[in-house]
Order: sequence, then structure tokens, then C-alpha cells
Amino acid sequence: MIARVYVGLKPGVLDPQGRTIAHSLNDLGFDEVQDAKQGKVIELTLSGDDREAAEARVKEMCETLLANTVIESYRIELDD
Amino acid sequence: MIARVYVGLKPGVLDPQGRTIAHSLNDLGFDEVQDAKQGKVIELTLSGDDREAAEARVKEMCETLLANTVIESYRIELDD
Repeated sequence: MIARVYVGLKPGVLDPQGRTIAHSLNDLGFDEVQDAKQGKVIELTLSGDDREAAEARVKEMCETLLANTVIESYRIELDD
Repeated sequence: MIARVYVGLKPGVLDPQGRTIAHSLNDLGFDEVQDAKQGKVIELTLSGDDREAAEARVKEMCETLLANTVIESYRIELDD
């Protein structure tokens, strides 16, 4: 099973990386870019095929290691 | 309009960050994790509402700045 975890900064948290991307794109002539945010995706290959159990375990992985829940939020997607 | 760009390493490119995540999860007792890959998501807020034009422009941004196409591939999603 494949689990995809999307981790991004919570609204209101300063995102210097995103601002740099937006500024650089503007400087390159992409004037339509108003804002940019950067996050990460972690794609996990998991053994087993119990979807519900997998979702609970991946949630635990996020809380323990993959996301810093003080400043980041995450979203989990499961694929067979 | 919101454009989401997913950038990840091409298959066969060494992904030390992904391997570290997989090993750390295994060490923490998440034995079901067989592999992990890390990529990035860039969410762009764009002015204008011509979808087709926006897609072409975002493709150009990827080729110019957002992805290193020698080792990375990217995928674009547009949201209204």
C-alpha cells in the first residue's frame, strides 16, 4: 500500500521559503504569481492491506516524526 | 487561481532523505514501512483565470526555477 503524507506550514506561520520562491518568480517575469507556499510530500510504501489500520499508523508516524504539529499541519492519502 | 506543483526525484536517483525517513520510522517501531520518498509541493496563488494559459506558464516556472529536471520530475494541478 502507498501512503502519501502532505505536510505544510499552518496558516499564519512565517514561510520564508515560500516568499523567496514568489519573489524569484516575480523577478523572472512571472508577474501573475501573488503568493507561494512550500510544503513537503512523503510517499511511504507499507506492507499489509488493512486500510483503516494503515491510516491510524500513518497518523501516529506524522505525530511522532513526519510533522512538527506545533507549526505544521498534515494530510494523509492512501492508495492501494 | 491556485496551482499545486509536486516535485519529486526521478526513479533511480538516490534519495538519502527518503532512506533516512524509512530507517527512522523502522527504528521507532513502524516495521511496516518498506520505503519512503520525500518530495516537495509548491502552492502558487496566481492572478487571472485562463486555465490553459496558467498551465503553460506554470510549466515554464517549473522548467526555469521550481524543478531541477535533470534529476526531478514534476506534476501540476490547477484549482479554481
